[in-house]
Amino acid sequence: MRGATVTSESPKVEFWFEFGSNYSYLSVMRIEQAAQQRAVQIIWKPFLLGPIFRALGMQNSPFVLQKKKGAYVWRDMERQCRKYRLRWRQPSTFPRVGVLPSRIALIGAEQPWIGAFCRRVMKLNFVLDLDINQPDHLAPILTQLGLSTGDILDQAQAEPAKKRLREQTEQARCKGIFGAPTFFVGSEMFWGNDRLDDALLFASEQI
Amino acid sequence: MRGATVTSESPKVEFWFEFGSNYSYLSVMRIEQAAQQRAVQIIWKPFLLGPIFRALGMQNSPFVLQKKKGAYVWRDMERQCRKYRLRWRQPSTFPRVGVLPSRIALIGAEQPWIGAFCRRVMKLNFVLDLDINQPDHLAPILTQLGLSTGDILDQAQAEPAKKRLREQTEQARCKGIFGAPTFFVGSEMFWGNDRLDDALLFASEQI
Repeated sequence: MRGATVTSESPKVEFWFEFGSNYSYLSVMRIEQAAQQRAVQIIWKPFLLGPIFRALGMQNSPFVLQKKKGAYVWRDMERQCRKYRLRWRQPSTFPRVGVLPSRIALIGAEQPWIGAFCRRVMKLNFVLDLDINQPDHLAPILTQLGLSTGDILDQAQAEPAKKRLREQTEQARCKGIFGAPTFFVGSEMFWGNDRLDDALLFASEQI
Repeated sequence: MRGATVTSESPKVEFWFEFGSNYSYLSVMRIEQAAQQRAVQIIWKPFLLGPIFRALGMQNSPFVLQKKKGAYVWRDMERQCRKYRLRWRQPSTFPRVGVLPSRIALIGAEQPWIGAFCRRVMKLNFVLDLDINQPDHLAPILTQLGLSTGDILDQAQAEPAKKRLREQTEQARCKGIFGAPTFFVGSEMFWGNDRLDDALLFASEQI
């Protein structure tokens, strides 16, 4: 199944995600194809969950703080990945810090390579079990995408990129986001990979 | 679509739910038809979330304690009920105490009237916005189901029924349940109305 061509007039869904978040992994891997099928544009919105959780009084992911829920989540992820035919390895470090790839994703948010970049970073974390905050792990991804690796890494480590990510995370907080992934269609919020299809359907019916 | 006849040999799903829980409402309304379609038996397991939350260090529902999540949940419920074609009114008291209907549901857990009873109690809470812990509100339901209303209410308020509900709730805690609804297929746990279909599919493939 393929949808109509996506144009700048197509309905939009904002996709708020975090590279350390396991349920964001599911949505990052699925969203481009699913949005294409409904002719919906994706507005990529990388942000950091850490400051959001701290603003809510939590010092870590609820999957770490709540041990029973945490244990459940890893089993759920195995089953969900089987359902969506995605590879899966439980990360040996959780949640991984994704500051550097988030800054790169902000630089590339409107570029044609954004989807492929995000999927490869997610694979680093949730398939290859590697540190996603290391320039040495991100450089090959940028190079494989045919990009100016050195320039992008320099930009991502400069003050304007740091500021953009802080601002984007603050915007997430102001919008009422409390977890990831979160989708917005206008002011309508949808939380969790389980609502990705509902969000796309809602967007496609807004025309 | 209708599945094969459900017999005592059919695969089983344990359905752990709580009458005060809004996502349990969705599953209570959906499960009998969905299980029938997959020829899966339902083992009805009413329990109380309050003691579970307290054992996890929470003094109330996370939807009350976490204000942003709470605000989201009511909007999500409106949309989910539209999706499943269920009526919906946000309860003026949340979460409602469901001790008495839970004791009745334990008495009737293996009776043919259990599904209809649970759906009617859920409608009291999430459609009619009425106190579900009042014998006066529960009696008409039992009578409409053709049951011995006085006997059942007497039983439900006697010590053995109280003890059974305490034990069932303790069993929920021991099984690692941290929210409702929760489904078990053998030792395999599925949390949330969003996993009802996965749980039934998993059960039906166990034959």
